[in-house]
Amino acid sequence: MIRVGIVGGAGYTGAELLRLLSTHPHVRLCTVTSRSAAGCPVSDLFPSLRGKVDLHFCGAESQLATCDLVFFATPNGVAMQSVPGLLPAGVRVIDLAADFRLRDPRLWHQWYHSEHSCPDLLQEAVYGLAEMNREEINDARLVANPGCYPTATQLGLLPLIRQGLVSGTIVIDAKSGVSGAGRGASVSTSLGEASESLKAYGAEGHRHLPEIRQGVARMPLATAEPFTGELVFVPHLAPMIRGIHATLYCQVKDHQIDLQTVYESTYSGEPFVDVMPAGSYPETRSVRGCNQCRIAVHRPGGGDTVVILCVIDNLVKGAAGQAIQNMNIMFGIDEITGLDCPALVP
Amino acid sequence: MIRVGIVGGAGYTGAELLRLLSTHPHVRLCTVTSRSAAGCPVSDLFPSLRGKVDLHFCGAESQLATCDLVFFATPNGVAMQSVPGLLPAGVRVIDLAADFRLRDPRLWHQWYHSEHSCPDLLQEAVYGLAEMNREEINDARLVANPGCYPTATQLGLLPLIRQGLVSGTIVIDAKSGVSGAGRGASVSTSLGEASESLKAYGAEGHRHLPEIRQGVARMPLATAEPFTGELVFVPHLAPMIRGIHATLYCQVKDHQIDLQTVYESTYSGEPFVDVMPAGSYPETRSVRGCNQCRIAVHRPGGGDTVVILCVIDNLVKGAAGQAIQNMNIMFGIDEITGLDCPALVP
Amino acid sequence: MIRVGIVGGAGYTGAELLRLLSTHPHVRLCTVTSRSAAGCPVSDLFPSLRGKVDLHFCGAESQLATCDLVFFATPNGVAMQSVPGLLPAGVRVIDLAADFRLRDPRLWHQWYHSEHSCPDLLQEAVYGLAEMNREEINDARLVANPGCYPTATQLGLLPLIRQGLVSGTIVIDAKSGVSGAGRGASVSTSLGEASESLKAYGAEGHRHLPEIRQGVARMPLATAEPFTGELVFVPHLAPMIRGIHATLYCQVKDHQIDLQTVYESTYSGEPFVDVMPAGSYPETRSVRGCNQCRIAVHRPGGGDTVVILCVIDNLVKGAAGQAIQNMNIMFGIDEITGLDCPALVP
Amino acid sequence: MIRVGIVGGAGYTGAELLRLLSTHPHVRLCTVTSRSAAGCPVSDLFPSLRGKVDLHFCGAESQLATCDLVFFATPNGVAMQSVPGLLPAGVRVIDLAADFRLRDPRLWHQWYHSEHSCPDLLQEAVYGLAEMNREEINDARLVANPGCYPTATQLGLLPLIRQGLVSGTIVIDAKSGVSGAGRGASVSTSLGEASESLKAYGAEGHRHLPEIRQGVARMPLATAEPFTGELVFVPHLAPMIRGIHATLYCQVKDHQIDLQTVYESTYSGEPFVDVMPAGSYPETRSVRGCNQCRIAVHRPGGGDTVVILCVIDNLVKGAAGQAIQNMNIMFGIDEITGLDCPALVP
Repeated sequence: MIRVGIVGGAGYTGAELLRLLSTHPHVRLCTVTSRSAAGCPVSDLFPSLRGKVDLHFCGAESQLATCDLVFFATPNGVAMQSVPGLLPAGVRVIDLAADFRLRDPRLWHQWYHSEHSCPDLLQEAVYGLAEMNREEINDARLVANPGCYPTATQLGLLPLIRQGLVSGTIVIDAKSGVSGAGRGASVSTSLGEASESLKAYGAEGHRHLPEIRQGVARMPLATAEPFTGELVFVPHLAPMIRGIHATLYCQVKDHQIDLQTVYESTYSGEPFVDVMPAGSYPETRSVRGCNQCRIAVHRPGGGDTVVILCVIDNLVKGAAGQAIQNMNIMFGIDEITGLDCPALVP
Repeated sequence: MIRVGIVGGAGYTGAELLRLLSTHPHVRLCTVTSRSAAGCPVSDLFPSLRGKVDLHFCGAESQLATCDLVFFATPNGVAMQSVPGLLPAGVRVIDLAADFRLRDPRLWHQWYHSEHSCPDLLQEAVYGLAEMNREEINDARLVANPGCYPTATQLGLLPLIRQGLVSGTIVIDAKSGVSGAGRGASVSTSLGEASESLKAYGAEGHRHLPEIRQGVARMPLATAEPFTGELVFVPHLAPMIRGIHATLYCQVKDHQIDLQTVYESTYSGEPFVDVMPAGSYPETRSVRGCNQCRIAVHRPGGGDTVVILCVIDNLVKGAAGQAIQNMNIMFGIDEITGLDCPALVP
Repeated sequence: MIRVGIVGGAGYTGAELLRLLSTHPHVRLCTVTSRSAAGCPVSDLFPSLRGKVDLHFCGAESQLATCDLVFFATPNGVAMQSVPGLLPAGVRVIDLAADFRLRDPRLWHQWYHSEHSCPDLLQEAVYGLAEMNREEINDARLVANPGCYPTATQLGLLPLIRQGLVSGTIVIDAKSGVSGAGRGASVSTSLGEASESLKAYGAEGHRHLPEIRQGVARMPLATAEPFTGELVFVPHLAPMIRGIHATLYCQVKDHQIDLQTVYESTYSGEPFVDVMPAGSYPETRSVRGCNQCRIAVHRPGGGDTVVILCVIDNLVKGAAGQAIQNMNIMFGIDEITGLDCPALVP
Repeated sequence: MIRVGIVGGAGYTGAELLRLLSTHPHVRLCTVTSRSAAGCPVSDLFPSLRGKVDLHFCGAESQLATCDLVFFATPNGVAMQSVPGLLPAGVRVIDLAADFRLRDPRLWHQWYHSEHSCPDLLQEAVYGLAEMNREEINDARLVANPGCYPTATQLGLLPLIRQGLVSGTIVIDAKSGVSGAGRGASVSTSLGEASESLKAYGAEGHRHLPEIRQGVARMPLATAEPFTGELVFVPHLAPMIRGIHATLYCQVKDHQIDLQTVYESTYSGEPFVDVMPAGSYPETRSVRGCNQCRIAVHRPGGGDTVVILCVIDNLVKGAAGQAIQNMNIMFGIDEITGLDCPALVP
């Protein structure tokens, strides 16, 4: 059994870790911390876990050092305070926040407006997108779990970038459910404001953009033609709880290539990426509550522009599920363990 | 492995059976029939099952006779045509429709406007509410799976009726998500009509009322005081996909009795009924996608009127999940097998 | 032109007053105050009012004394601080909060946990339910605008109570959209928490209960038989923005009486109460954005229990629209002025 | 008073015409036809219109010839059967379907798979986008009311195209509420299927694409540089009733130009186009139920790519409201008559 701790268990990614880990056969949940909910039974805050999780939220982090693995489901900037103390104690860490995603500490400073407190760990941290970095995750002490938009976007682009097929500007038009904004109280995500409406935000610069840029730049290439174009990223808030739909537009150099085959061969063998048949339109609900990513490839009118449709559940493949997938890899367990349930439809 | 067939797999209860059975460790899914979807891969109609269910919908029912158990997830009146042929072949049956719920064939005629085609089986059929009839389900050849409203209502009333505590009229004000109306195309359940609105329906007589009446009349009594009052049942359509919230109002004879204890003792040991602490308000989402029923007991102002709040997922404990719970009992498997996941929250 | 001021314009009832008054032909909007939004253009906070309302939120209340009428759309307990200063200056007041609804200052203390600061005004204040008190509203200096649940409930009960037809306990099962909780940031009304779910709350005692009790006790009687029974009130939070559906259950003494006629005759001539044909089921969306109340009367199975279905838009007939209706009456304008648009459906 | 008839009043655009016309001061509604609802009172099908519209749906079209103006709110291909008979009788026509939108009858054949029955009228028909064609609408006998996506898209692109600023491919990523699919019964738009989900559709070729292409090609130019690039159009179904959000991506030639000023000057004086301040993000709900179009202009990172955000209510500015705007122009009435209410928010 893997002894697991969760830091910041009272938010949505924490709750989702609890939901998924509560039935994971190889995990023993040892401690769940929360400053805001310290002392409260987990199942009082989350009645859906009554009878499933029998812990209280803990204010102190003292028990973390006794864990084999600690998940940080904290706001940005918290994990980097604690991680340098945990690693030497032999505790492995998966951070679901952004602290270790950007390898360049100057980018952290630029986008998160603070000094990074342990820049040396940025080089060690492995970016936890198994479909790109499975080998490195296997041995990692510290995994930076990808952001939700970057997960959907990179899985959608990887096959094209790897083959050096894209030129020009890539447009990333992404739509997310409101759980992506976290569980905090806010007027803008209240049902009265966010329901029955849709809007863009962050077009001038969203923090996931440098993460996507870095990811695209580091994708392994099967050719000598790296992508050198621009990325334009506009996220939208959609009136639903869960789900990300990334619609990716790019110009493809090769008119003859069979893109369906490119995608299918890239992801054959991947347990959590489903390349749908040509002509398909993935729905976000088809991955609701599960760790799957579904992708469809379109080339409207047979023209230069390729449209990639990519859906994930932002809280699962875009957060807690992907973190558990990484845990499974790190501890040598079958990668799909605890992540095998189908989506909840309808 | 239990060899299982599903008749009518293209509706919501069929889809929910497929979702839940796809990860059941003791089930081998042999055949799924559907007239409307015959020949179509199950995962084309339900892309959320891609990689999970590798069958085509079958137009013919010929393979049913080779199954150990057949679920009927068909419209009312269909199962009673096929069941008399299956039972003699040694096939056990769980019917998720209403065909075998009412023991009196005259009631069937009155509420469903047709002659019952096998009234003799009505006496043999066991009403599949495990919390009342676990013993009989164990040996049953034919189980009538309860309706969604009757499940929530009976679980809410059982402790009070059993103790002979209720007098007068019981008011059942129930609210259901639209999946209760099934997967058929209809204007009234379209998002444009049913979203952002709430309405009552069926106040003049809903088909679940005679089922509830029969259930209350047959509840095992711990006293000599059967309930003899009236039932008033008003269902409402709420703008959500899943969930039933039954709010039950009744007059309690005994002012001194500790109702919280009555409920907790009635359901101690029940794996799927959760009596919440005094003062709680169960949310339908706390059971979304899972087989749990959550109940809270209130006595406003300490008066005569008791208010019971009872939530289930209409497609799980109110349909497919309860059917699988019954299957587990019938085949001597641990009752919670395949039904152990927590609710999907948020 | 009526010179109008609004105190507390940044919440939902304030925003709804602004929406409705912006096209009212007899109103000149002079000042809108808000502490939280002071200095901000109204149309920055509410972009839907761009080009419609050309005011800034004002931090000070100094201009109120120059108004003919001031609406208080403030939290409970605020209006009673300012109203005693405004009335002597000749300013008439409509309070949309609870400050002047309960005539007995001890009830205020009991339910709102503070001393009432101007108990003498409680006797002068007119309860602004036009269908009961039109004459008094006409001359009122101070109108207490009814709560949303009490509006729906009292309009549903008035015809029966007036005729002395009800005995025993009245059950009020009410369902409200989340805008009833106001525009403040809160976890419980966020889309992630409140969407796709339904729950009861406040069964042990909601502040609208004493208001309903007082309203029922003060209803004008056409007979010598006042209602002396109990009221049980359980509100529910439904996953929608607007709308209240009150389902009222009561025992009627007279089996012969034609209730449909009782309702139709009570409300003939009322511009904002629509008694629907027998057998109807009003939907909350049928009053979305408009000041209408729609009512349907059912007697299931011809039994003793009568079920009244009553819908309003909580922000219109349940708040801002009713306030404007009261203003129209107070200033001798046609009662429907500015309130004549049909509901927004779909 | 304008004597008005509506053909096809039982769908969503018909219902929206009824809602808006019921309070239009210059309109007398003479006849509303519907095959499916013939004989039924309008207010039985649409209870929100009780007391507002006192007509029955009429099966015959005989009264149309006595109208000054007839709106066709029918499925594609219906209006072209009747219009040739009405025009000679002096009846003016606004068609809300696609019959007269494409000037080239071969395009009709290609996209709608039938022969156009009156191709001669295609040249006479005026495309009813007032912001482009106000003069021609003024005198038109026959107006082709634009589609919902084309309205949002063309209003978003007009200022750029007019100034010859765009090169390369324009990406149109559009999101629509489900009312855009009409009021018919369908599984895919049921709440159980379409709620809590988002998906693309029609990427291979949506019927609104040739309409947008034609519109862009016919835009009046202030320069000698017509747009010659490609258009890529991907519509998405969003889980809401109303609203279109078009996100438009294009490459702008001129790096120095102040796009905010270009947009503001193009639309100064337009009553129904609101160019929001720089940095704004329009929400679809800010135009819910009203005829406004709101636009915001972004240039992420000051790069080549410009992002235009454009929202309308698909049933109002995208259908019935724009049709009434056209009617007002045709009959010399103030253009905003009957269209002056603010959006319903929240």
